[in-house]
Amino acid sequence: MNNILIIGAGRSSTALINYVLQKAKENQWFVTVADADPQLAEEKVDGHPNGRGTWLDVMKVNDRRELIERADVVVSLLPAHLHIEVAQDCIRLKKHLITASYVSKEMYRLGDKARERELIFMGEMGLDPGIDHMSAMQKIDDIKEMGGKLTAFRSYTGGLIAPESDDNPWHYKFTWNPRNVVLAGQGTAQYLENGKYKYIPYRRLFTKYRLVNIPGMGEYEVYANRDSLLYREVYGLSDIPNILRGTIRSRGFCDAWAALVKIGLTNGSYPILDSDKLTYHSLMEAFTSNEQGNSVKEKIAQLIRQEPDSEVMQKLEWLGLFRKKKIKIPNASPALILENLLLDKWKLKKSDKDMIIMQHEFEYKLKGKKKCLHSTLVLKGADSVDTAMSRLVGLPLGIFVRLVMQGKITTTGVNIPVMKQVYDPVLEELKDYGVEFKETEVEV
Amino acid sequence: MNNILIIGAGRSSTALINYVLQKAKENQWFVTVADADPQLAEEKVDGHPNGRGTWLDVMKVNDRRELIERADVVVSLLPAHLHIEVAQDCIRLKKHLITASYVSKEMYRLGDKARERELIFMGEMGLDPGIDHMSAMQKIDDIKEMGGKLTAFRSYTGGLIAPESDDNPWHYKFTWNPRNVVLAGQGTAQYLENGKYKYIPYRRLFTKYRLVNIPGMGEYEVYANRDSLLYREVYGLSDIPNILRGTIRSRGFCDAWAALVKIGLTNGSYPILDSDKLTYHSLMEAFTSNEQGNSVKEKIAQLIRQEPDSEVMQKLEWLGLFRKKKIKIPNASPALILENLLLDKWKLKKSDKDMIIMQHEFEYKLKGKKKCLHSTLVLKGADSVDTAMSRLVGLPLGIFVRLVMQGKITTTGVNIPVMKQVYDPVLEELKDYGVEFKETEVEV
Repeated sequence: MNNILIIGAGRSSTALINYVLQKAKENQWFVTVADADPQLAEEKVDGHPNGRGTWLDVMKVNDRRELIERADVVVSLLPAHLHIEVAQDCIRLKKHLITASYVSKEMYRLGDKARERELIFMGEMGLDPGIDHMSAMQKIDDIKEMGGKLTAFRSYTGGLIAPESDDNPWHYKFTWNPRNVVLAGQGTAQYLENGKYKYIPYRRLFTKYRLVNIPGMGEYEVYANRDSLLYREVYGLSDIPNILRGTIRSRGFCDAWAALVKIGLTNGSYPILDSDKLTYHSLMEAFTSNEQGNSVKEKIAQLIRQEPDSEVMQKLEWLGLFRKKKIKIPNASPALILENLLLDKWKLKKSDKDMIIMQHEFEYKLKGKKKCLHSTLVLKGADSVDTAMSRLVGLPLGIFVRLVMQGKITTTGVNIPVMKQVYDPVLEELKDYGVEFKETEVEV
Repeated sequence: MNNILIIGAGRSSTALINYVLQKAKENQWFVTVADADPQLAEEKVDGHPNGRGTWLDVMKVNDRRELIERADVVVSLLPAHLHIEVAQDCIRLKKHLITASYVSKEMYRLGDKARERELIFMGEMGLDPGIDHMSAMQKIDDIKEMGGKLTAFRSYTGGLIAPESDDNPWHYKFTWNPRNVVLAGQGTAQYLENGKYKYIPYRRLFTKYRLVNIPGMGEYEVYANRDSLLYREVYGLSDIPNILRGTIRSRGFCDAWAALVKIGLTNGSYPILDSDKLTYHSLMEAFTSNEQGNSVKEKIAQLIRQEPDSEVMQKLEWLGLFRKKKIKIPNASPALILENLLLDKWKLKKSDKDMIIMQHEFEYKLKGKKKCLHSTLVLKGADSVDTAMSRLVGLPLGIFVRLVMQGKITTTGVNIPVMKQVYDPVLEELKDYGVEFKETEVEV
C-alpha cells in the first residue's frame, strides 16, 4: 500500500494534507489531492515531491472511479451527503475509506459488504465527532477497568474565539460552518437525568443553558445537543442514568441567541417576500404586532421581555438589526438573512486565533466512593488559516491514515473510533501536536 | 346527465347525500354512494329509490374507473391527497369533479386538460374553504360595483361548541379533524398590515391573538392563519394594504393553548421513547429542567410564567396532565399523546350542539367616506351527528352538484367558487337552510 487519495482541498483539509505529506517520504507514500478547484488542490500540496493536486468533479463517475482505483486509502472531505457515492466505489474497488462526518444510515448499511471485503470504513474521525469519541472512550474504558461504575457522563464542545481575539459583545466569531451555527438545535434536545428522559424543545433551548467551569478559563454556557442519547450503546453506557452532550458558548451568548430565536430570525423554512427591498429595520418591524413602544427597537425589547438598553438588546443593536440598511438578498428566509448579516459581523480577522474547548465530565462509583473527574482540552489556533478547528479535524484523520497505511488497524467494516486499537495511538500521537486532555478531580 | 357519484360516506357526507337524494326524484337523478365500508354507504342512502350504496377500494384502479365511467358528475370526499387519482380518471373519462378540499398544485396542473374537455373541476366548495370564498366575494364584488375601494379585508372562521353545550373550562370540543386542531398554525403566519408584510412565528401565534366582537354573541379570540396572503390575487385584492385570515376561539382558549405549545406538547416531529410506560405526570416532568418548585405542577407553572392556580393552569389540570395515569400509546410524539388525551376530554356528547361562526370585515372608501362593514354567519347544529359543520360543508357541495347537473355552470377548468355565476345561486339557496350572513355597519 502506498497511494493515498484525499478528496476535497477546502478549509478543513490543510492540517490533514500537511500531516500526510510530512510522513510521506519516510513511508514512501504518494498523496493525490483532488478538488473541483485544481489550483486549490495544488496549492495545498505546495510542490511536495510525494504529492500532486488534481481536478475532480465528484459527480463524474468515471473520473472519480479512476482516481479511487489507483488509491489504497481514500479520505473523503466532501459534504456529508456525497460520501455515499465514494463509499460505493470503495466497496466495488476494494479501498479503505475515512471521513470526519457523521456516519449516515446509508453508510452503516454498507457495513457487511465492507467487512466481507476486509475493508476499513471509518467515519466520525475528526474533532466533534471524532476526538470527543476517542477521549471519552479512553476514560470510560479506564474507569470500567478499575472496577468503577459510571453514573453520569456529560460531554461539551465549543468552537470559540480565543480571549485575546475577542473584540465583540457576542464573544463569538465563526470558526466553522455558519449555516450550522444559525440553524443549531432546531428540533428537540433529548437527554437523560436521574434515569429519566428529558426534552427541551428548540424554543426553550437557549434559555435553559447550564454554567460550566473550564479550569483556567472560567465559566462558560452550555446548551444541550439533540444527539445526547445517540451514543449510549456504542459507548457501552446503555444503563447510565445521566447522559448529556452539549455545545459550549461564552457567557451572555445564549440569552442573546434566545432573543433571535424568539423574534423568529433563525427560521429557515419560508421566504420573506421581496426581502431585497426591505431593510433590517423593516424586517424587525414585520415581526412585531401588538407590542407597546415608540420605536421598533422598543417593541422588539418588549417582545423579548428585555429593557431597551439591556445587554441582550445591545448585542442585537451591534448586529445592525435596527439599522435602515437594505438586506439585498431576494426572497431569503429569516435564517439566511441572519446568516449573511453574521457572516460579516462574526468574520475572523486574519490574525484572529480561534479556540476549541472540549470537556468531559465523568461521575462514577469506585470501591463505595463517589468520584467525579473532569477531562478538559483547550487548544488555540495560530491565526485565521491555521485554526485549532482545522488542526483538530485534520490531525486525527491524518494519524488514522498512517495507522491504516502501516497495517496497524485490524477492525474492518463501518465504524466510529471507539475502540482502544484506534483511540490509544491516535490520542498518544496528538500529544506531539499539543493536543492533550488535562484531568481534574472534582469534589462530589 | 343523470348519474351522480359520491365517493366517501363519512361524517361530512350526510348533508350532501341528503340534499342530493331529496332533489333526485324531481330531476330523475340516480345517486351512487361509494365507500370502503359498503354498509355505511347503504345506511346513508337509507333505501332511497334513486340511490344505492356500494363498495369501493379507491386504490383499485379498475373498480374506481368503472364507477366513474358510469357517472356524469363525481364528488370526491376522500382525504385530500387521494383526489388527484380520481381527478386523472375524470380527465380521461370526461367527467365533472367537485371537492371540498384545498386545490393542490397537482390539481391546478390539470386545468388546461379540464378546460379543453369542457369539464368543470371545482374545489374548495365546502365551508372553509368554500362558503368563506363565496360570501366574501359577493360582498367584495358588491363594494367594487358601488365604486368603493377596499382598504382592509379580514375574515375569521371558527368551528366551536354552542354556548348551551359548553360545559368545560376550555369552552371547546372537537367538531372537526382533531389532528388538524392539535397541529394548527405550525409554521409562520403571514399577513399584511398597512401595506407591510407581518410575520408571526408559531411560538408566538397563540399569544398574539386579537379580540373580535361577534354581534349577539360577544367577544371571541382570533389567531392568524398561515394562508392570509394566498387569496389576494384570486379575490382581486392584489393591492389591498390590509389582509388577514384567522381562526375563532372562545375567550381564554389561546392563552391556554399557548401554554401547551410552550411546554412542547404540540410537537409531532419526534417519538417519546417508551411513552406507553410513562404517565402524563412523568411526561410533564420530562419537559421541566431547572425551574423552581416543589412539584411538577409548580415547575410547569414557572415554565409557562403562570401562578399555579391561574385559569391557564386550571385548564391544564382539567385535562389530566398532572395525573399519574399511564399514557398507553407506545413511541408516540407529544402531539399524538395530546391528541389522544383531548379526544377523550373534548368529545361531543350525543346531544351536544356545535356552532360555526364566520365573520368578514370589510373596510373601504366610498365617495370620500370611510366605511366598515361586518358580515357575520352564526349557525348551530342540531346534535352531535347533524352538526352545523357537516351541513355547511355538505350543502354548498350539494347545491353546486345541482347547478352542474342542470347545466347552469359554464365556467370550465380547475376553479374555486369566487365567480358570481357560482356564489349568487349557492348563497341564495343556502338561505332556505338557515344559512344567512347578517351585515352590521361599524363606526370607523
